[in-house]
Amino acid sequence: MTYADLSEAELQSLKERVGQSYAEAKARNLSLNMARGKPGADQLDLSMPMLSLLASPADCIAEDGTDCRNYGVLEGLPEARRLMADLLDDEPENVIVGGNASLTMMFDTVSWFWAFGSLGSKPWREYDSVKWICLVPGYDRHFAITEHFGFEMIPVALGVDGPDMDEVERIAASDERVKGIWCVPKYSNPSGVTYSDEVVRRLASMKCAADDFRIMWDNAYAVHHLFDDAAEQDQLLDIGAACRKAGNPDRYVKFGSTSKVTLPGAGIGAMAASPANVADFKAHLTISSISGDKMNQLRHVKFLHDGAGIAAHMRKHAAILRPKFELVDRKLAEGLNDVGECSWSSPRGGYFVSFDAPHGCAKRIVQLAKEAGVTMTGAGATWPHGNDPHDSNIRIAPSLPPVEELEEALDVFVCCVKLAYLEKLLG
Amino acid sequence: MTYADLSEAELQSLKERVGQSYAEAKARNLSLNMARGKPGADQLDLSMPMLSLLASPADCIAEDGTDCRNYGVLEGLPEARRLMADLLDDEPENVIVGGNASLTMMFDTVSWFWAFGSLGSKPWREYDSVKWICLVPGYDRHFAITEHFGFEMIPVALGVDGPDMDEVERIAASDERVKGIWCVPKYSNPSGVTYSDEVVRRLASMKCAADDFRIMWDNAYAVHHLFDDAAEQDQLLDIGAACRKAGNPDRYVKFGSTSKVTLPGAGIGAMAASPANVADFKAHLTISSISGDKMNQLRHVKFLHDGAGIAAHMRKHAAILRPKFELVDRKLAEGLNDVGECSWSSPRGGYFVSFDAPHGCAKRIVQLAKEAGVTMTGAGATWPHGNDPHDSNIRIAPSLPPVEELEEALDVFVCCVKLAYLEKLLG
Repeated sequence: MTYADLSEAELQSLKERVGQSYAEAKARNLSLNMARGKPGADQLDLSMPMLSLLASPADCIAEDGTDCRNYGVLEGLPEARRLMADLLDDEPENVIVGGNASLTMMFDTVSWFWAFGSLGSKPWREYDSVKWICLVPGYDRHFAITEHFGFEMIPVALGVDGPDMDEVERIAASDERVKGIWCVPKYSNPSGVTYSDEVVRRLASMKCAADDFRIMWDNAYAVHHLFDDAAEQDQLLDIGAACRKAGNPDRYVKFGSTSKVTLPGAGIGAMAASPANVADFKAHLTISSISGDKMNQLRHVKFLHDGAGIAAHMRKHAAILRPKFELVDRKLAEGLNDVGECSWSSPRGGYFVSFDAPHGCAKRIVQLAKEAGVTMTGAGATWPHGNDPHDSNIRIAPSLPPVEELEEALDVFVCCVKLAYLEKLLG
Repeated sequence: MTYADLSEAELQSLKERVGQSYAEAKARNLSLNMARGKPGADQLDLSMPMLSLLASPADCIAEDGTDCRNYGVLEGLPEARRLMADLLDDEPENVIVGGNASLTMMFDTVSWFWAFGSLGSKPWREYDSVKWICLVPGYDRHFAITEHFGFEMIPVALGVDGPDMDEVERIAASDERVKGIWCVPKYSNPSGVTYSDEVVRRLASMKCAADDFRIMWDNAYAVHHLFDDAAEQDQLLDIGAACRKAGNPDRYVKFGSTSKVTLPGAGIGAMAASPANVADFKAHLTISSISGDKMNQLRHVKFLHDGAGIAAHMRKHAAILRPKFELVDRKLAEGLNDVGECSWSSPRGGYFVSFDAPHGCAKRIVQLAKEAGVTMTGAGATWPHGNDPHDSNIRIAPSLPPVEELEEALDVFVCCVKLAYLEKLLG
């Protein structure tokens, strides 16, 4: 028995009660936030020891003798490239360590392709239009980059094992102006899915009309498991190896960062790509950059050491995050199982739960929540141009609020879902 | 009596003796470097206390309560904008604090103008060609940026009080495709000159054929005095105030950083411009950046405090650098006063001495020095495309080597100047 099965009178009476709960929530003058994937303060505390690792001049010397306090080393310290190679599942010599954000490296990469082309190809700005595959639901800041350069964004559905590959293959083969695709291949933002091996292989080997088609592989949640047991952790095939095997070694560019490993905004970003792409990128970077912040690189290496060190550190994050994700799942199930037309993801990693509301209700839910003091990611944000054709998807980010606040915020959210759906059913 | 006055026989005998000295220098297998404006290790030590200022979570809270360990604050912490406003001689609300390098901010700014235009103007990429005024001798990394975007670079002489303004005015007024000028207005790289008030006013008020002509005001050495006495410090008129007064408020973009205040590569970069320009820049940055590294911003604020704190810190740098600049001047005078056709700057601040060798000798001098183990900035680097038409200018960077090494390096340099000139005179 769900809302759709109720009579109008029953719905009316239900709406009165839900409306009463909503009014009570509003009266509490809450200020809660489930909008962005920000770590909580207890997660940030985990990295405090990192801040005191460079105290004497001797601490600031890299393994090859470089004084990290001075200019130089454009592509990053050797030990930092090794660390980030572990994170990116690649070889250190293919890694460039950048500034404090992989987002900036993604923007710059698209900008270089657009302005100057890739490996000698025609600069994308010289086409009458550039098209780009955007998986939905997806990450709003990816879409913002391709929108900024005026690309036409083509939404393709992201399923439980990755993109709808029949669609992706059809579009990529159809037009040389289709130049690439955004991917968050592991614990995807927002739906939490990880691409299957088969999907990775098809992305690597598919026929593209454009020789310079590029997969922007934003592995933002590479090590961000919610469970410690390997059997409960998603595994992702290496896109680099798959592309090489398929004879398309230059098709991918990997990105990652320590933003949600150590400190957001004070972490280190990195990219990895084929030797030809890396040489191309360095030719641009040598003009625009003096180097990343080597002191921060060295801090990270001394704190995290290597892949095993990262994994150990991430288990501490998981211990804090797991109860929050379990709470989301429990609260939504308790509150919405008898409502109907609602579904949500139960990811094994990452930072988000993807919620699908009854069609036509997402904007209203987010508005109701906002008026009751609970800030959600804007409805539609998970679609290009903020345009969700079903007005259904809402991204829930449970990491920032402490558990008690999260519980309160979820109660309000559930109430808003019910109210919006009742409003819809009652027309 | 200089070399030009000597007979061929005298020159021959002199060349034999100088060649002998050069061979002796070469035999010492030196490895000395006067190539780039890198601070010495003792200068870097001055900033070590900065690295231990953020030890507890409470240390990481900004004055408005922001937890600097988490995401946010695109344009920089309020206190960091205030600090950099002191450095840039501007108002905090006009300042954007960026990443670890003003160079990247300069590249990005040119890139935005080129790709998207400025304040609604036609994107520069849409012109058949873009022209740019490059003051010579000047900074090679500036020239590299405008070269990267394919601009035609027009060299104009930089004199003792700034650019040859008659030339600059003539060129700026001649063609709407002349879009800007690179300026290092104080203790210029490499010649050490500071623009006179009259020059600043003429730059601000000159007639430009392009409405979107932009002065890229790289005030890299704003606080980098070599002398403590105000009477021996250069003063620079504020280009922002001058542009506003002249009715051209959007013409300038200021840049600066703490690279040579605290730690190169681990400092903070910043820019300042009119409110309209700042709004324009933020519309781009909100797509490409998550924010600068707020932890590093906070470290800098806690260490330097304000303009007075910066000045006090810079006096410590000056105490280390001044003897090196005095040594350069003394060594060049002792070694070259009876040679002729050589001149050099005696700056009151900055990082460089600009040396003018007898015409046609600069490349040979740098090559001879290199073969004797003394690395100089490449001859020609101070001109666009590395093309110094007189093959005369060499940039001397005395900051990195300890005094004893600097003395040795200068002896070799003087020897190379003599030898190259003698080779020229003897045809």
